[in-house]
Amino acid sequence: MQTAHGLIETPVFMPVGTQGTVKGVLPEALHALGAQIILANTYHLYLRPGHELVHQLGGLHRFMNWSGPILTDSGGFQVFSLGDLCKISEEGVSFQSHLDGSRHHLTPELSIEIQQALDADIIMVFDECIPYPAERAYVATSTDRSARWARRCREALPAGGEKALFGIVQGGIYPDLRELSARGLVRLGFDGYAIGGLAIGEDTRIREQIVWLTREFLPDEKPAYLMGVGTPEDIIESVKMGLDMFDCVLPTRGARNGMLFTKTGKLIIKHSRYAQDDSPIEEDCGCYTCSHYSRAYLRHLYLSREILASTLNTIHNLHYYSRLLSGIRQAIQEDRLAEFSHDFYARRAENRDQSEAESL
Amino acid sequence: MQTAHGLIETPVFMPVGTQGTVKGVLPEALHALGAQIILANTYHLYLRPGHELVHQLGGLHRFMNWSGPILTDSGGFQVFSLGDLCKISEEGVSFQSHLDGSRHHLTPELSIEIQQALDADIIMVFDECIPYPAERAYVATSTDRSARWARRCREALPAGGEKALFGIVQGGIYPDLRELSARGLVRLGFDGYAIGGLAIGEDTRIREQIVWLTREFLPDEKPAYLMGVGTPEDIIESVKMGLDMFDCVLPTRGARNGMLFTKTGKLIIKHSRYAQDDSPIEEDCGCYTCSHYSRAYLRHLYLSREILASTLNTIHNLHYYSRLLSGIRQAIQEDRLAEFSHDFYARRAENRDQSEAESL
Repeated sequence: MQTAHGLIETPVFMPVGTQGTVKGVLPEALHALGAQIILANTYHLYLRPGHELVHQLGGLHRFMNWSGPILTDSGGFQVFSLGDLCKISEEGVSFQSHLDGSRHHLTPELSIEIQQALDADIIMVFDECIPYPAERAYVATSTDRSARWARRCREALPAGGEKALFGIVQGGIYPDLRELSARGLVRLGFDGYAIGGLAIGEDTRIREQIVWLTREFLPDEKPAYLMGVGTPEDIIESVKMGLDMFDCVLPTRGARNGMLFTKTGKLIIKHSRYAQDDSPIEEDCGCYTCSHYSRAYLRHLYLSREILASTLNTIHNLHYYSRLLSGIRQAIQEDRLAEFSHDFYARRAENRDQSEAESL
Repeated sequence: MQTAHGLIETPVFMPVGTQGTVKGVLPEALHALGAQIILANTYHLYLRPGHELVHQLGGLHRFMNWSGPILTDSGGFQVFSLGDLCKISEEGVSFQSHLDGSRHHLTPELSIEIQQALDADIIMVFDECIPYPAERAYVATSTDRSARWARRCREALPAGGEKALFGIVQGGIYPDLRELSARGLVRLGFDGYAIGGLAIGEDTRIREQIVWLTREFLPDEKPAYLMGVGTPEDIIESVKMGLDMFDCVLPTRGARNGMLFTKTGKLIIKHSRYAQDDSPIEEDCGCYTCSHYSRAYLRHLYLSREILASTLNTIHNLHYYSRLLSGIRQAIQEDRLAEFSHDFYARRAENRDQSEAESL
């Protein structure tokens, strides 16, 4: 996939850089661990430091010293997370800032303007992220309105420019509403399509069904982005269904809470079993953290609430995701995704069996 | 100055790495910004993760991935800071951990044992850091006891080994007690001498007098270390009096609180005047932070309480100190320290004059 700031190999995982920084990690370290594109949050950057300021200072790439591609969300997800602090109309959404209570009005046009000012390579349409569970009637009304907003976004940013605009399929857990939403967006024509409104509490099997059937209504030749998902398992299953792009706070937030990803499962660094453990998080990992630091040191940093605990853990987790996705890409190229997936689950199962045997 | 982990050019500033990490900065970044040696805290590492564990895992250099020299303090300063939680006797000090209230007994011999287990290159004798102000009688008694403790430390770590042992001159603000303390230590014979018990509330002029007269009683050919000092101004004045080594939390702690050092004085990054400021902290600085980030971005990170605020600010401040000291070393070599010192103060005064003119 080509962007104004370089090529992206898919499937790809996008580290989350909410406030114009992937928490605790320098851009050079992100490049080194294989990050191809990062996600930034329109809502947060609009409120602070302000999109106009970022634009005036040369755009987000220059502001945060990240030369690779950037995708910005539309701000909708955060605004609707405010609950009672937001009020929706056909025109857009009125809300109060979580920072200082100041009042704002976000419309599809303003969302596009903000994302353009930030100089995002991939811009998302402004939509309502419907809570779960929700009545079918509300989901239908909201999905309809999001479709009209998507049209306004497409009009605000016509096709053919340097920046990509992605539509977002809504429709809750209702297959027919998902179909309606997907077909409507495809008619409008976007550079890519996201599946939104999932991973917000619904059953995993239901989510997988919705992803699978929604993907069927989207053009194969355009990238499909599953928003806010997820675990390594979620990503593997979604790739099998033809999804290309992912983002999630799990590897970064988890890292700051001492939760580390390994090919045999999760590792909770504060556990006393790692107190004297001189080995790296993973023997054959190759990330900066695993190349230089022991579990014992990482546990010490975590228990001491040291800043480097967040930095080193995040580098490892993002490298894990990066390596997982490059493994998936290679497996796809070599037409052995099934084998890759089997090995992935087998290593976890083996580790669980071993742990259970040890605890007998 | 030669150590087991490399040569140190003096005068030198030692960044503080209390818990086995200079807060927020990776060891590679410390090397890159010119740090020659770091200081670690015996008290903290003894309590957590424990010196035996660090020893078992190959010593502090390997544990924290720092290949350069390390100086450890003796633990005395922190123990005596506990106030009522510590109880002193001829044998040593009993205290309760600030972490879990557990009881411990620290003696000169144990302090040396801990510092050896940590594999410090420069080991400090265990002494009492006398509070300020203190009665002369108490200072005399305490300084006497510290002298006996210094002898026990020297016996626990005889001269001639790979590790350097430094004595610490006490004596409060009393010139005759300082002389007594210095002469006693010199008779015992150490690899270097520190001046302790200063920068704890006494008047700057008094401190300078004590430093000056104490230095006179110490051998010129051995490094002299002024503990816990200080500001750039303090360091310049102390170098003039023949001091060679310094440590202080000011550049690191200040950085985390948004206080940045520049050649024209301090810069408080949260000030609104930097909101739209596209320039680096200092135009000709050359540190990683100044090479890649604007004041506006650093202000944004600081106000957003982002981890990288601490990292980037600390890199700049430590680079500032590093450059200050290398400037001093060059000036000494070229026999123009007076000129260097004049320029240093002139730039600050000029900036102050300008600020005052602007505010008229």
